[in-house]
Amino acid sequence: MNFIALTTNILVLNIFFVYGKKYEPNWDSLDKRPLPQWYDDAKIGIMMHWGVYSVPSAAGGEWFWGVWGHYGHPNSNSSQSKFMRNNYPPQFTYQDFARYFTAEFFNPDDWADLFENSGAKYITLTTKHHEGFTLWPSTYSPNWNAKDVGPNRDLVGELAKAVRSRNITFGTYYSLYEFYNPIEGKDKRNHHKTNEYIRRKMFPEMLELVEKYKTEIIWVDGDWEGKAEYWNSTGFLAWLYNESPVKDTVVVNDRWGLKLKGHHGDFWNLKDNFASVTLIKHKWEGTRTLDLWSWGYRRNMNLDSLVPTKDLIRLLVRDVSCGGNFVMNIGPTHDGRIDLVFQERLLDVGKWLKINGEAIYKTRYWTYQNDTVSQFVWYTKGQSAVYAIAIEWPKENVLQLGSANELFVNKKPIVTMLGYPDKLKWTITNTPNKTVSITFPNRATVKGEWAWALKIK
Amino acid sequence: MNFIALTTNILVLNIFFVYGKKYEPNWDSLDKRPLPQWYDDAKIGIMMHWGVYSVPSAAGGEWFWGVWGHYGHPNSNSSQSKFMRNNYPPQFTYQDFARYFTAEFFNPDDWADLFENSGAKYITLTTKHHEGFTLWPSTYSPNWNAKDVGPNRDLVGELAKAVRSRNITFGTYYSLYEFYNPIEGKDKRNHHKTNEYIRRKMFPEMLELVEKYKTEIIWVDGDWEGKAEYWNSTGFLAWLYNESPVKDTVVVNDRWGLKLKGHHGDFWNLKDNFASVTLIKHKWEGTRTLDLWSWGYRRNMNLDSLVPTKDLIRLLVRDVSCGGNFVMNIGPTHDGRIDLVFQERLLDVGKWLKINGEAIYKTRYWTYQNDTVSQFVWYTKGQSAVYAIAIEWPKENVLQLGSANELFVNKKPIVTMLGYPDKLKWTITNTPNKTVSITFPNRATVKGEWAWALKIK
Amino acid sequence: MNFIALTTNILVLNIFFVYGKKYEPNWDSLDKRPLPQWYDDAKIGIMMHWGVYSVPSAAGGEWFWGVWGHYGHPNSNSSQSKFMRNNYPPQFTYQDFARYFTAEFFNPDDWADLFENSGAKYITLTTKHHEGFTLWPSTYSPNWNAKDVGPNRDLVGELAKAVRSRNITFGTYYSLYEFYNPIEGKDKRNHHKTNEYIRRKMFPEMLELVEKYKTEIIWVDGDWEGKAEYWNSTGFLAWLYNESPVKDTVVVNDRWGLKLKGHHGDFWNLKDNFASVTLIKHKWEGTRTLDLWSWGYRRNMNLDSLVPTKDLIRLLVRDVSCGGNFVMNIGPTHDGRIDLVFQERLLDVGKWLKINGEAIYKTRYWTYQNDTVSQFVWYTKGQSAVYAIAIEWPKENVLQLGSANELFVNKKPIVTMLGYPDKLKWTITNTPNKTVSITFPNRATVKGEWAWALKIK
Amino acid sequence: MNFIALTTNILVLNIFFVYGKKYEPNWDSLDKRPLPQWYDDAKIGIMMHWGVYSVPSAAGGEWFWGVWGHYGHPNSNSSQSKFMRNNYPPQFTYQDFARYFTAEFFNPDDWADLFENSGAKYITLTTKHHEGFTLWPSTYSPNWNAKDVGPNRDLVGELAKAVRSRNITFGTYYSLYEFYNPIEGKDKRNHHKTNEYIRRKMFPEMLELVEKYKTEIIWVDGDWEGKAEYWNSTGFLAWLYNESPVKDTVVVNDRWGLKLKGHHGDFWNLKDNFASVTLIKHKWEGTRTLDLWSWGYRRNMNLDSLVPTKDLIRLLVRDVSCGGNFVMNIGPTHDGRIDLVFQERLLDVGKWLKINGEAIYKTRYWTYQNDTVSQFVWYTKGQSAVYAIAIEWPKENVLQLGSANELFVNKKPIVTMLGYPDKLKWTITNTPNKTVSITFPNRATVKGEWAWALKIK
Repeated sequence: MNFIALTTNILVLNIFFVYGKKYEPNWDSLDKRPLPQWYDDAKIGIMMHWGVYSVPSAAGGEWFWGVWGHYGHPNSNSSQSKFMRNNYPPQFTYQDFARYFTAEFFNPDDWADLFENSGAKYITLTTKHHEGFTLWPSTYSPNWNAKDVGPNRDLVGELAKAVRSRNITFGTYYSLYEFYNPIEGKDKRNHHKTNEYIRRKMFPEMLELVEKYKTEIIWVDGDWEGKAEYWNSTGFLAWLYNESPVKDTVVVNDRWGLKLKGHHGDFWNLKDNFASVTLIKHKWEGTRTLDLWSWGYRRNMNLDSLVPTKDLIRLLVRDVSCGGNFVMNIGPTHDGRIDLVFQERLLDVGKWLKINGEAIYKTRYWTYQNDTVSQFVWYTKGQSAVYAIAIEWPKENVLQLGSANELFVNKKPIVTMLGYPDKLKWTITNTPNKTVSITFPNRATVKGEWAWALKIK
Repeated sequence: MNFIALTTNILVLNIFFVYGKKYEPNWDSLDKRPLPQWYDDAKIGIMMHWGVYSVPSAAGGEWFWGVWGHYGHPNSNSSQSKFMRNNYPPQFTYQDFARYFTAEFFNPDDWADLFENSGAKYITLTTKHHEGFTLWPSTYSPNWNAKDVGPNRDLVGELAKAVRSRNITFGTYYSLYEFYNPIEGKDKRNHHKTNEYIRRKMFPEMLELVEKYKTEIIWVDGDWEGKAEYWNSTGFLAWLYNESPVKDTVVVNDRWGLKLKGHHGDFWNLKDNFASVTLIKHKWEGTRTLDLWSWGYRRNMNLDSLVPTKDLIRLLVRDVSCGGNFVMNIGPTHDGRIDLVFQERLLDVGKWLKINGEAIYKTRYWTYQNDTVSQFVWYTKGQSAVYAIAIEWPKENVLQLGSANELFVNKKPIVTMLGYPDKLKWTITNTPNKTVSITFPNRATVKGEWAWALKIK
Repeated sequence: MNFIALTTNILVLNIFFVYGKKYEPNWDSLDKRPLPQWYDDAKIGIMMHWGVYSVPSAAGGEWFWGVWGHYGHPNSNSSQSKFMRNNYPPQFTYQDFARYFTAEFFNPDDWADLFENSGAKYITLTTKHHEGFTLWPSTYSPNWNAKDVGPNRDLVGELAKAVRSRNITFGTYYSLYEFYNPIEGKDKRNHHKTNEYIRRKMFPEMLELVEKYKTEIIWVDGDWEGKAEYWNSTGFLAWLYNESPVKDTVVVNDRWGLKLKGHHGDFWNLKDNFASVTLIKHKWEGTRTLDLWSWGYRRNMNLDSLVPTKDLIRLLVRDVSCGGNFVMNIGPTHDGRIDLVFQERLLDVGKWLKINGEAIYKTRYWTYQNDTVSQFVWYTKGQSAVYAIAIEWPKENVLQLGSANELFVNKKPIVTMLGYPDKLKWTITNTPNKTVSITFPNRATVKGEWAWALKIK
Repeated sequence: MNFIALTTNILVLNIFFVYGKKYEPNWDSLDKRPLPQWYDDAKIGIMMHWGVYSVPSAAGGEWFWGVWGHYGHPNSNSSQSKFMRNNYPPQFTYQDFARYFTAEFFNPDDWADLFENSGAKYITLTTKHHEGFTLWPSTYSPNWNAKDVGPNRDLVGELAKAVRSRNITFGTYYSLYEFYNPIEGKDKRNHHKTNEYIRRKMFPEMLELVEKYKTEIIWVDGDWEGKAEYWNSTGFLAWLYNESPVKDTVVVNDRWGLKLKGHHGDFWNLKDNFASVTLIKHKWEGTRTLDLWSWGYRRNMNLDSLVPTKDLIRLLVRDVSCGGNFVMNIGPTHDGRIDLVFQERLLDVGKWLKINGEAIYKTRYWTYQNDTVSQFVWYTKGQSAVYAIAIEWPKENVLQLGSANELFVNKKPIVTMLGYPDKLKWTITNTPNKTVSITFPNRATVKGEWAWALKIK
């Protein structure tokens, strides 16, 4: 036994990053990488939280185990402890749930059809959430992945294939942090002076994920539990941008270490359910979970906690207007279904986009975002027109715009409403602020709902 | 992040072995270690095969998964595939069984009482068999151990404590090899030029096992799958003998790498169910499973495959006479019980040892093992007497010995039968071979069964 | 033992019906009973199919067992057989599902709130469907009811109590027929010359149901399997109308025997999912299942098979206009939830009724049902006004009515739209057919959706 | 509907018994029936307690449900309540266990081989114990029988066929009483002035059992819960002896009603585990359960509660000597196995009978039962010899008999030991009591164990 040899392959792996590559493993270098255009064009995506937590699918959703464990299993007053006491034998563990993650109704083509019809251009699947369970047969998570226990299928691979056949980009969520990984726990007790977890599990697992599935979005999470130095974030990103099979197209979010949100990454998430009403010039993504209180499926969710279609359209319009992408999150069920209330909302958004997609896809933010007179109007800029999207129907059928005068004064633009055949009449005041008034058609003759996009050309 | 630092702790760990210690990581050095005396004194132990295979507890026992997987899951004609088809849904995996490993009847004190009453001086528990499932909460086998799935208990810790309170030595079986460990699989595909499995999993896991439970027997297996160089066997043993908390008392078997059986280790096992009828001067251990066709529990075992008490006593006597220890293997059930037929046999052996233990414990092999005239007689040597143990009752109640004359000629020894109050009469022939004839008592007045030990003092 | 005495109590029970009661056990007598007014006032109800079939909740819904059994269990090509082969061990029986009917999320008060908010005035719960499983602890169905297996609760009693506290009438569905009742099977093989099933099980069970829960709707089914003489239908109804605790308020449907639909009973159902577009003068009920292909819950239902709210409102309006009540059917889940897509539709109907209930509840059918000019308009008659309900918004905002002239000519009625504050303008032509034209408000200012009720006073 | 007709078939059934038959439905008549000879010849049988209780197979065995229910389910201190709290969710019912009664290892031919090799001439299977679950697909116990839930097999039919192919008589245990039958409960609340349970369930079920399986032993139980008049015992027996397909060969035990044990029936059981040391002239049966504390299987049984083979032989010899048959009870497991400790004991008895059967089968009781001098000797009488069976080996190898002198004085009988080739020597004293002394062979040369039968011819 050559003791030096024991460590060779890891040494090589890291040294490999260091020399002569386009991007160096430091933020200054990595931050210089331009955003791949496809992502800015896509505008709308779907995120999915699916895992062993989809089995209890109760209070806390994907955090079920975290909360249950935190307050001590058997006798606490947490909703999770009560749920377990009421429904399971005392010695039942969280991991025992995995056997009931059956996915028997999971048909990836049906899912992909749904995503396509919802107008989403990319999806992001939780390939591993904080529970550590991987939805693919990870080499580094034997017996705790969807091939080995429960579904007995490679859920990541099956879904990747199906969505790609519909020209939807396949992306993956991966939690750096795990609730109860014992090796990560050792590192923590060592104040992160050791990084066994990173070397033995996280880093090789992320490489496997990228190499095997060529995922084009890396959406990391659990960042708060350690500094980027512990997570080896710059090392990973240098490999990703220099060497990986997706080095030219991949995009990543910004959760690369404690207090780093909004500092690095191809797009920023900033925080859960983030949305902005003002322009952010760095590309960002607003993710919104359709069940307000959970990202994973909760059987006890109710209609009050469901985001209505109207709000989704409003968020979509606003986020895009302010430079963001918009992502809707849903939690599939333990048996592989997407709840019909989620399907309804996704398809509603799809219906809206079928009429109004021109005002969203491939647009860029405009000079103004939110109209100064009609605050329910948001602007986007297309290649040959500006779009003013009204997320309410104007009272008395006349829309007044305060920020659009540069498009009208001395210009005589043609104004149409997407999905409506005729031109709209408009007038402009002679007052200094030059308010534009546009007459809407009889609403009973308009097909669309929720929001109406005016094209000003 | 310092990339060199990533690898430091492993480097240190190994260098650590190399310098200035009593034993060096090579066989020449390791083979010099003397056998701790307790092991040679103990003579009789119990081995237990317990794991997820105790759930199906069907054809193949602890090899259920190996055979099932080998012949392809769903449609093969193997007994395992048929069993699965007949009793489980198609997508059910081996790992799904773990949730049903409940151990609800497992009471370690009851087990320890049983072991004590069986006369065993040590036990060896499968802490990890080829399936990879650990019976303790291994840091390196998260979600695939008895604390995380199934019993929700530290089976190793509980049993260690219970048996030690009865002065029984606690030992552990640990399989180097795992049927389907994906990292080990990578090493194999690399022709063992990499050893990720050893570094990430096996080696640190063995250290944890020893450090946490201070196990005094390391009984390894699965050796055939790699050379000792791959398993890092000498490295481990050097650490074990030099640094471990059990460095002075621990004993190990001989399965440290391909084709190494019978070459190194404190005691030799040589092969499954090995037994010898001639002296082997290096300390060895004969393990015999009570269910001839399995080491783990099989619900479909039948009486024909059960070793009768008489055979156990015969093996015990013979093995000890020939320099071995004797170990009886049993498979506990998924719900934590030891089948009563196993209990019966163990207690029968215990009953025999209560009468005859003097001829077994702390003895050493004698000049002769097997008597030349009465081939059913085997010798052992105690501190102040020689024992001739007859494993059949002599016809006509007179036992003739051909190898014992050195004890009788000109010596007038006192001959007694253990468990019988009176001295036995003996005569010796005048022929050259000096055959000794010892008159046995009326059998109806003798308490013991199965075998009778004569003490020649 | 007195052999005559063995039979006494049944004899007495029946003779009891015969003499001196208001209703005799024959159709002539029974048909004379007037309809209790509450039922005609109520107009809208909810039916629920819940049972062991809610566990597989797959193809065939509540008929899962019937179809599975019909085509032979193990190897048929039916969806049910495939589902079983793919997901369950071969020996798994339908009855084995019962243990997984857990109802852990069933909160009867939540359900009752939902029903109240949906505007329903009564509910009808399947207390026993063709599978024979009773949702109450039936004396005559031991070990095959929701108290003894699965939920371990009296689902009927809990729900009855909750809905009554909200002034919703509690009604019950009860299947005369059972798929595989062995005693019923014997009767069938005897060509119904015996009626052991009726005497031992069905009849006493129906009595228990009525006496214990004072259910005010008896909705029977499975009628086609026997003549009314076999089912003892007139005997039961005579008891129900004369003697039962609900004799004054109870209403029953019309499925009392082979080919009797539409002939007897307080209200007629006629057939599954029946709806009429012309007046039926005998009170009737149109039940419509929200999942077009099943009455019980199907996990694999999809949005295409879900009735949209618009259609529900249309059916409600039309049925009420034509003399019917309208009942929406939903299938709760095995764990005691009502799927959110069902909740959405029920609450949409409730929202509509909050505005338009005046045009529905307590109304009666009018001279005309469907307007001759605007065929999307249906009439109802309230105490002091006639209601014309438009289930489409009129093109150009002007509604033309052909059947309402008797209300306008020489009468100058006030016309309002429910939920809109101002009076509507109307004109009438001088042509012979006297078409009335009513000007609708700007649609953007009208709160309601789906249908708009004009009150003509 | 003819109301009188409703009751006809039961009336006819009972009247049917009354006239012109051999046996009338009263004890005087029934008691006159002679015992079918096969039963007295058979001498040894096996009883089996198998049912849903074999699933928990814990404290209380077949009474698990009775005790659990009696002390109130959830919070009592009974062993059953603790077991449930520790191992099952709170809402888990006893009936939920049925789904786990899998019997996957049940091979009726293997069982029948075992019974044959144990020397038993008949078996008695619990076709329905107090829990009410029937092991055959009873028409009167739908959904609570082994075909409908759990095994999905007709356990009664399969076993009947297998044992008969080995010339073992098939008998059945049937409990009149059920722990929680709701109809029986109604009768009880009516102080047994009604007998709905008898008419609807018990009586037709017993008829079905006899007619379908032609069982030749009817072993009833639960008698204490009602008088014979309630159970309709004489009615059933009159039918059984006059009309049933087994009228000439069937035998029944004595538990036909409160306080009737030892008064009627073909053979008397008297009480659980009854044994006699003096002659009882009416044929009787001593049943002994091999697990002292339970008749059904208990996973937590231990060796202390197991009857040793020696005691079984002693009981067999004594019971037969005193006019009884001897029956050994065992509890099969939920998965269809007979525990190997039970198998061992049964086969030991079989081994003994292979040598000594001549002294047991087809014998009758003799003038004396228990010898006056050697109290461990019991007599039986064969066709041409008397047998003295010693259940201990005589000290000093000489057996002294005080009750056998009539066979020796002036008779010079030949005395042999079954299984031993040579004649035994005997002498007789000249004292008044004429003690006979018989010299036993060297024990080491005798094959048999446990008891030795001397044939005095």
